[in-house]
Amino acid sequence: MTPDEARARFAAARVARLATVGADGRPHLVPIVFAVDDDRIYSVVDAKPKRTTALQRLVNVREHPAVAVLADYYEDADWDALWWVRADGTGRIVDPGGDEGRRALVRLAERYPQIQPTGDVLVVDVDRWSGWAAAAPRDL
Amino acid sequence: MTPDEARARFAAARVARLATVGADGRPHLVPIVFAVDDDRIYSVVDAKPKRTTALQRLVNVREHPAVAVLADYYEDADWDALWWVRADGTGRIVDPGGDEGRRALVRLAERYPQIQPTGDVLVVDVDRWSGWAAAAPRDL
Repeated sequence: MTPDEARARFAAARVARLATVGADGRPHLVPIVFAVDDDRIYSVVDAKPKRTTALQRLVNVREHPAVAVLADYYEDADWDALWWVRADGTGRIVDPGGDEGRRALVRLAERYPQIQPTGDVLVVDVDRWSGWAAAAPRDL
Repeated sequence: MTPDEARARFAAARVARLATVGADGRPHLVPIVFAVDDDRIYSVVDAKPKRTTALQRLVNVREHPAVAVLADYYEDADWDALWWVRADGTGRIVDPGGDEGRRALVRLAERYPQIQPTGDVLVVDVDRWSGWAAAAPRDL
């Protein structure tokens, strides 16, 4: 899969999973909603999740900025339809009141009218878009 | 969410995402099909994925056994239905021809009749089942 196709599939997905690495070297993994802007992925903690869990990803990114974000499609009945795309990059924490933070919140609210952002914005600067599809793409 | 509830939701999911850490300290993330047996998660590389990508997770586990595995449910129309469960544990590579490897392959084939296992089996010994649900559970 080409990087452009991987990015297009990623940008169209509704949910992804964010992997970070803790100070103890262990991987940490949470689902995120997100918006893609060129080679950046924006996400923010929604008001709903537990605060302690929500913050671990930000603590980790400050310690270890390398992150991976994955979107995938699974269907029991047709494994030829399976695909996944991954963004490998560097995370940074952005003030929601700054220029980039405000842009991120606008993009997230466009995609998810129900979102209730709280706290800082996580921006991932993507170095590499990659992916795999079981069969040739049908609609991309 | 209690550990027992997290494990029950996890065991019933059809796809999960495996996070490992590479020798370079970067997180690596792939979707997996799996079977849960008590506090162990079995997975195996299917014949379909690209071989190079498929092996990275095993290289990482040998270097850094700490892994995280996530299953989640997402629905645009009803964020009160959202949940996720995470298994934090230790990965190890098992010979598919040994006792545990054969048991893993049987369990995987029971869950996924279409699976075509290839190569080694990854077993995750889970230390901690945790999770979050937006609303009170409806059917567990």
